[in-house]
This record gives sequence, C-alpha cells and structure tokens, in this order.
Amino acid sequence: MDTNPCNIPVKVGFSVPSRVSRMTKPDATLVNICGVQVGGSGVVVIAGPCAVESREQLFETARAVKAGGARILRGGAFKPRSSPYNFQGMGEEGLKLLSEVSKETGLPVVTEVMDTRKVELVAKYADMLQVGSRNMQNYPLLKEVGMSRKPVLLKRGMMATIEEFLLAAEYILNQGNEQVILCERGIRTFETSTRNTLDLSAVPMLKRLSHLPVIVDPSHGTGLRWMVPAMAKAAVAVGADGLIMEVHYKPEEAICDGYQSLSLNEFAQLMTDLKKIARAVGREIS
Amino acid sequence: MDTNPCNIPVKVGFSVPSRVSRMTKPDATLVNICGVQVGGSGVVVIAGPCAVESREQLFETARAVKAGGARILRGGAFKPRSSPYNFQGMGEEGLKLLSEVSKETGLPVVTEVMDTRKVELVAKYADMLQVGSRNMQNYPLLKEVGMSRKPVLLKRGMMATIEEFLLAAEYILNQGNEQVILCERGIRTFETSTRNTLDLSAVPMLKRLSHLPVIVDPSHGTGLRWMVPAMAKAAVAVGADGLIMEVHYKPEEAICDGYQSLSLNEFAQLMTDLKKIARAVGREIS
Amino acid sequence: MDTNPCNIPVKVGFSVPSRVSRMTKPDATLVNICGVQVGGSGVVVIAGPCAVESREQLFETARAVKAGGARILRGGAFKPRSSPYNFQGMGEEGLKLLSEVSKETGLPVVTEVMDTRKVELVAKYADMLQVGSRNMQNYPLLKEVGMSRKPVLLKRGMMATIEEFLLAAEYILNQGNEQVILCERGIRTFETSTRNTLDLSAVPMLKRLSHLPVIVDPSHGTGLRWMVPAMAKAAVAVGADGLIMEVHYKPEEAICDGYQSLSLNEFAQLMTDLKKIARAVGREIS
Amino acid sequence: MDTNPCNIPVKVGFSVPSRVSRMTKPDATLVNICGVQVGGSGVVVIAGPCAVESREQLFETARAVKAGGARILRGGAFKPRSSPYNFQGMGEEGLKLLSEVSKETGLPVVTEVMDTRKVELVAKYADMLQVGSRNMQNYPLLKEVGMSRKPVLLKRGMMATIEEFLLAAEYILNQGNEQVILCERGIRTFETSTRNTLDLSAVPMLKRLSHLPVIVDPSHGTGLRWMVPAMAKAAVAVGADGLIMEVHYKPEEAICDGYQSLSLNEFAQLMTDLKKIARAVGREIS
Repeated sequence: MDTNPCNIPVKVGFSVPSRVSRMTKPDATLVNICGVQVGGSGVVVIAGPCAVESREQLFETARAVKAGGARILRGGAFKPRSSPYNFQGMGEEGLKLLSEVSKETGLPVVTEVMDTRKVELVAKYADMLQVGSRNMQNYPLLKEVGMSRKPVLLKRGMMATIEEFLLAAEYILNQGNEQVILCERGIRTFETSTRNTLDLSAVPMLKRLSHLPVIVDPSHGTGLRWMVPAMAKAAVAVGADGLIMEVHYKPEEAICDGYQSLSLNEFAQLMTDLKKIARAVGREIS
Repeated sequence: MDTNPCNIPVKVGFSVPSRVSRMTKPDATLVNICGVQVGGSGVVVIAGPCAVESREQLFETARAVKAGGARILRGGAFKPRSSPYNFQGMGEEGLKLLSEVSKETGLPVVTEVMDTRKVELVAKYADMLQVGSRNMQNYPLLKEVGMSRKPVLLKRGMMATIEEFLLAAEYILNQGNEQVILCERGIRTFETSTRNTLDLSAVPMLKRLSHLPVIVDPSHGTGLRWMVPAMAKAAVAVGADGLIMEVHYKPEEAICDGYQSLSLNEFAQLMTDLKKIARAVGREIS
Repeated sequence: MDTNPCNIPVKVGFSVPSRVSRMTKPDATLVNICGVQVGGSGVVVIAGPCAVESREQLFETARAVKAGGARILRGGAFKPRSSPYNFQGMGEEGLKLLSEVSKETGLPVVTEVMDTRKVELVAKYADMLQVGSRNMQNYPLLKEVGMSRKPVLLKRGMMATIEEFLLAAEYILNQGNEQVILCERGIRTFETSTRNTLDLSAVPMLKRLSHLPVIVDPSHGTGLRWMVPAMAKAAVAVGADGLIMEVHYKPEEAICDGYQSLSLNEFAQLMTDLKKIARAVGREIS
Repeated sequence: MDTNPCNIPVKVGFSVPSRVSRMTKPDATLVNICGVQVGGSGVVVIAGPCAVESREQLFETARAVKAGGARILRGGAFKPRSSPYNFQGMGEEGLKLLSEVSKETGLPVVTEVMDTRKVELVAKYADMLQVGSRNMQNYPLLKEVGMSRKPVLLKRGMMATIEEFLLAAEYILNQGNEQVILCERGIRTFETSTRNTLDLSAVPMLKRLSHLPVIVDPSHGTGLRWMVPAMAKAAVAVGADGLIMEVHYKPEEAICDGYQSLSLNEFAQLMTDLKKIARAVGREIS
C-alpha cells in the first residue's frame, strides 16, 4: 500500500533528483528480496544481531526472529567501528554463516558492505546489500552497489539532509539499480540522552518526495533497548514500510550494541504490539 | 494510564531534578484543567488557531474543534514573533474573546504568557498558562507561573536538552505548582525540509524520567500542514498523553502559521484516525 | 575603525531587518558607554567575574582587570541558572557593589537583566544592560531595554541563527535605542568537548550585514579556561570590536563558571598578547 | 614550533586513542611532504583549485599561488559530489597534470582519494593523499592510506566529534603511517548563512590532545569567498600549523566551488596579511 500516493509537488527548497522522484514515477517501487516485498501494503520487519559473532548466536537468534514474524535477517560481517581496536567483524566467515542460516530458515539476509573491493564477495552470500550511515556519501561504493543486481538498503547518514539522502540514492539508481530501500536511522543533534535523534518526519517526507520504500531503524535511532518498542510503534504509525531492529539471544553478552538489542522475548512481545498498530493504519505486518 | 510505570532508574548522564523525578513520585501526575485530565488513560487533544484574530475566526474554529473531539482550546493573544514588524497578537482583547468562547463551548482555554508582568492578567482569563519555546529558560517567568495556581503547559525550548527541559519544569514545581504538562514541539537541527525536527523519543524518555504528563505539538514540530496527521498518529503510538495542534477555519487566510494549520475537515478526519491508534495502544481519545 | 566598510549587499537567504542593516546605514555605529566607545578603531575588552559574590572578590578583580587594560567591568547580579537550586545572584545588593566599584575604578559596568520588571532597577546602577543568551527572544524584555536609554549588550542565543539575532536587535532599535552591541558567545552543536562552539564566522557576517559593533565572549564560547586565550586572539584577528571575558581573582573558588574564568595573571598575560594581534590587523586594544 | 607543548591531561569526557595522543608522544609530529614540513614553527599554506579542470587553469593557478608563497599545491582529480550529475573530476588525466605542474613549480601536490582501489594509483602521482570529509569514517580507506607510505591529509567529517576525528586518525597510525595532518574544515550546524560552521576551537583542542599537526580549511569552512581572509587570519591567530585554501585563476568560471575560491590577487593580498598575524603569534609563514 502506498500511504502517500500523492504526486502533488511539495515545496522543500531543493530539486528532487529525477530517478528517485515521485514526480517521475508516481507509483511506489516494490523492492523484492528473494520474494519478500518491501514498499507494498505490508510492513516488513528485518531483525537480527548487530554482528555475526558465532554459529550458535546467529542460528538461535535467526530462528527466534523468524518465529516472531521477521521476514528478513540482518547481521554484520564487516563492521564499521569508530575505534580500530574494536571487533571489526568475522568477515567472510561471517558471510558464510549468514548464507547457511538463510538456507535453514528461509529468511533472506541483509549485511553491510563498506569497501568497493568487497561488493562482489558480499553479493555472493547476501540477498540485500546494506550501505551504512558512515558510507552514505561514499560515492564509489554507491556506484558499485548500483552496478550489482542486488537490492540495496541505504541508510541515511547521521549528518545527511533529506536532499543529500535522495541524491545518494540517485547515485545507485543512476547505475541501473532501482531496487533501493531508504532507511531512517537517527540523525546527530545536540541532544545526548539518546544515541541519535530518530527523525520520524523523514518517513512521510521521503514517501512524498520519492517512490522508494522507507524503513526505520529504532535500534540505532535511540541506542536504548527499552525505548526501541515505543519508537518502533511510532514508526509504523507514521507510515514506514518496514523496520530493521537489532535482536540478540543474549543482549548482555553481545560483542557490540548489546545496550540497544532486544532480547528474544522482547522482540516477540513487540511484534504482537506492532500488529495492532499496523491494523490501525490499514496495513499488516506481512 | 501510565504507559511507562517503570520507576527503575535509567542511565542518562545527568541527575533528574527531585520534584519532577519519577523516582521521587512513581505515580503519574494528573493535570486537571477545569475537569479535563491530562496524564491519565485518555489522550487529550488541544486544538485551535495559532493566534486569536477575530471573534468569527475564533468562535467558528472553536465550535468545530469541539465537534471533532478536542477537549481544550488553544489560541494566542500575546504572540512571540521573530520580527517586530509581524502581528504581535490582540492582547487583552484576545484574552476576552478566549474567555467568551470558553463559556459558550465549555472548552477550557490555554494561551501563552511571555511577560512576568502579564501573568496575573492572563491567569484571569485563561484556564492554563503556556510558557512558549523561546521562554523555556526565562526563569523569572517560570517562577511567576509557578506561583500562580493555574496549570502550566511548558514547551520544550527548540534548543533545550531533556535535562534542561526537566530543570525548567523544576523551577515551576519548586514554587509549589505541580500542575505542569511537558510539551515536545520540535528541536532545531541541521535538517531544513521541516521547520523543526520533532523529537518523538523525548516522549518515552520524559515519561520514564518524570511523573509529569507529556504531550506533542506536531504543528510546530513539522511546520507542514500535510505532515501533521502522520506525526500526530506517531505521537499517540509512542505514548504521548495528548496533542496540541493548530487548526484554523480558513488556513489560507490565517495571519500566522497558516501553512501548518489544519483545516476543519482535516482535523475531523485526523481525529477519526487517531482514535484507532489510541485503541491500538490501549488508550482512548478522551 | 570599520573593518568591513563594504555596503555591497551579500546574498544570505534572508532579508536583513531595516534598522540594523548596513544597507540603511553604511557607517559603523559607535556605542558609547560612559565615554568608552565600542565599534570604532579600538578593540575594547570587557572583563570581570561571572557573578558578583562579595565586596572583596569584586573589588580585587575589578582593580586587576583595570590594571590589565580592561575598559569595562562585567559582573552578574541576577544570574540565569539552569537549576533552581543553584546560586541565583546577589540581586540588588550585587548591583550596589557594582555601582560602588565603578565609582572607585572609573570602569563602566555591564550586568544582565532578565525580568521586564527589573529593567528600571538595573538601569539605575548599571551603565550597560546585558540581555543574555537565554533571553535573546524574550520580546517583552527586548522592548523594555529598547525603551531605556542605556546601551544594550545583546548576546546571541545559543541556538539562534544570524537572521534571528539581527531580528532580536531590531526589536531594540525599533523602540528608539540604537546603542546596541552584538555578542557572539558560542552556539550549540553536536560537539561536546567544548561547552559551546564559538562561531567566529559570525563576526565578519554580522559586520557585513549590520552597522552595529560585534564583540566575542570566548569564556562561554569554549567553557575552558585554558582555551580562552587562543580563541580571544582569533576573535581579534577575525575583526571583533571587543571581547567580554570572565576573570576571577580566585577561579578555583568561584561560585559559578570558575572552570572558564581566567586568573588575574592569565588575564594580564593575555592582554599583552592581544595587543600584538590587534596591531597585526591595524587596530589597537583601546 | 609547538604552540601547545603542554602534555598535562585535559578532561574531555573520552579517552584519546593511544597512537595519536600527546600523552604517549609529547613532542609535536613533523609531517614532511617532499621537504615541506608541517607541524613545526612555520605556518604552511596549501593552495590551488577545487578541481583540476584543464592544463591552463592548473598551471596558471599553480604558478600564482607559488609566487604568493604557497608551499604545497592542492587540486582534485576525483571529486566527491553530492549529485551524480555533477562533474566528477578528470580522474587519472587530472593526476598526470598535477604531477607535471609539480615538476615545473617544485610544489608538492595533495589530492583526494575516495576509493580503496585507487590508493595505489593516486599515490603514484601525488605527494600527499587527502581523505575527504565524507570519507572520514570510511575505515577500509583509512586502513589503505595507512598502509601507503605517503603523508595523509585527513579532513574532519562535517558531523564528526573531536573524539571520532582522533579515532579516524588512529586507524591510519595503527597501520604504521604516522605522517598524518588533521584538518578542520567546518562542521554542520543549524546555521545556514555560511556553508558550514568553521570550528576554530578544534585547533587548540586537537593540538592539546594530539601530537599531530592541525591545519584549517577556511574555504569549505565558510563557503564564502569574501569571508575566507578573515577566517584564515583567525586560524593563524588560534594556532593552526597551516591553511588549505581554494584559489582559482578565474573564480567566476570555475566548474566547482567558484563562490568560495579566492582570485589570484585576493590570495596574494591575503598572504601579506597572514604574515603579520603569524609574526604576532611568534611564527612565520614558512
């Protein structure tokens, strides 16, 4: 369902680039990840651990998020970390685990790629390529994922305006790849009680300006495990086409982002609550 | 209903001041505006024009928002305007009109006070005193409204952290007035496609840290009439105790903020939608 | 000396309000505080404690800053404090001490006024009225100081744009008072290693757009005593007409802002350094 | 000259990573670019066009900036542009022109590299590798330039904290390359009258926390040609070890950034003024 079918131009002080613009293409784009459609009437939940840490961690978490209703699995093999001394991810070994768990559970897999030289490798194992917040304006990378034939999950830079976000997506579409999902994941502001400020107004704005699907990441957006459910509900109410959330089978033992990862029980409970909100806005958790 | 009954301490990097803290007073505070309770299980809608412009404008708008389900009327008589050459409000004449329309409709009235010297005058006509965003750290004013016996609607400064917002409320409580409603109305960020960035994460954060009711202003928060409904729904989903919205019987003729004011029809439609969201989170539009 | 005599219009995306605009009045305005001129060829240093704490503290500090070359004394009697439980200033007793020390040293005195009801009182004792950062958009206060015949030191709001800053000054000029000094004192950004981010580009921008003098407050701008000298030098190099700095005879015992106050020795040393910078840009510390 | 020789720890709320920390290495690091030292007593000026556009443009500009006193030439061959439809740089052809003009003028050359796959190529032609603002957290790229043996000019991300900036530099040093220059180039704030807000307080802060040289880019920092001279002077006064500025032989015809590029005459005049400021802080334009 296209919650903002309106292709009446909106004054925003900048030109929406042509390929991503709803003026060019009024109908909502459906992104298809191995049969899971994002951008239609359903609200799609992507869940999984911040990083792939071990076979046990990944498989247990994957089975549980599937049982809870997630349709796509997330998990990082190459991790962008502020410090060079932090865990940098399991690399190709992590990709292999993701591929295995995908076969077992049937869940398509999304994982981040940071290096132009690794796009081919990551595309071999993953069903959707994620371009992370820190790389939203890494133009060679955008071009490279644009040349791949995989769907792309493009996260908004924490410092990026809506205009810059759309221009980054345009780089991908301009290479011939229209299977792009936009993800609001929190912007940097002066407020410090949350990790970032989740800008939910970006959802109706992006839906209005562009035909691309828009999802929300309340885990990075808040950085606070206890706050994720409230913001996830708000994201569905505001019209997001999906959610991407960090879930861990043992959050307190997670190597990274444990403080913002839901436990398996919390995730299951949240999915129940989200179904009610989705219905209230005329959609369903698909 | 207290959506965040939890009085487990949350690490936020600052001390929550004692009088506003939920650690001091675990039970949610109910603010009573002439019989309308904010902070309970109901979600209260406050609506009305940005500024009182004329008898006709005020009365027509008031009747319509009442019919739509608003419980409290808003309307500015003293307007804080960036430019000295813009309409500064009708002053006492506007207050009198507010008082009259309140008698006719039975809706309690909230209006802004900006000057310590005017607190007594405004309190004579209004049922709740609003301290606006630009005056959130006007300490003499906070003390003065703290000494009045009227409920206070305290808007977050567009540049204020959660900590500063709670400290501002503490100034009011410290004078003996505990009838304070906190209002998130958008913060200033680098993003320019919206007027402000509505920080909905402030709602669960404030509810967790404080016992005071929290409402949301999607009109100033977005500055975009077409975006108000989406953000209003998100605000209810996230757990807000109420909404304050600008509604005008002829938005295109409004002297101020017409671009962010809902028409009477849009307001009526939105109220219908909000009821569904409220039910989905176990509340009702009261 | 008018360092930016240029009255060629600059494209800034907004209209500069008429009374403060250099297009209306190409010549620089000289603000005269009891014979001390700000806005001419000299660079004027205003120094003194954050708050008036005691006779000894005030007099010792005042004598030392005078000896070092300060031309105007600063000191707060009414203090805007984030918490109601912090020291709120000595009030009228502080004003009296300021008036006394002014008579002894011959230094004119600037002090903050926060409340419209106190403008008359403060004007009785002070030579210049300061409107603080938190009150930059307190319009009744701006109008009130505009009606007084005292020079006004208007500090930029920590989240105010250049446009809003100029509009705030316009409120004062619009009441007939043209003796206004603009003060850049740091803006709020995402950076937390400094208290605020001192926006020195505001100086050439304001000088270009307006005829009013512009000074800089490196104490609040950085919040770091050791960094004040470097930023003070930069402020003179960039073209500021003056500086306002916190100096305390015993910074480690200061009731407020000790961490950003220079000691008497540090102040004396800095003044020596500033003279060299002033000469390098064709001015002098007057 | 080490303007902040102090290795007394400063409280900043985070741990300075070990390899970049002045606590680990109290002496200032000298970065040597083909015989030009940055980080010593001299203030080094890097100048040149935003992008290499043509042989004529590059050679004329290079000769002029050399005559004016620049010691290093800048010029982009691979340009990071917000829009895919903007000029993306001349690529290897541009690198060759840079190499040629370097031979003729004797000026070492710095140019940006954006893609891990291009580090070897760019290092073949350039004397210093620039990592641009948008790539400050492109960790594979940081590692790759860390493995090269070329000096690196690392620009601060427009929304990067001081902590993140130092961690990004740590990635490079951690690969064995200590020849890193830090560059403040403006951060993103709410203010829109300038392109970015040049954070000059970053200079003393970085010099205090780290032994690496720190330079300033007033061209990107302001985005306003007429404001560059004032901010360049402030940068020298605040203690910067160098400046990097955009200069173009015909700014009004520049393909990119013409609005912030100095003309050849403006550059020559500025160099004269900068010499006075440098002397006033006990340094020289080297």
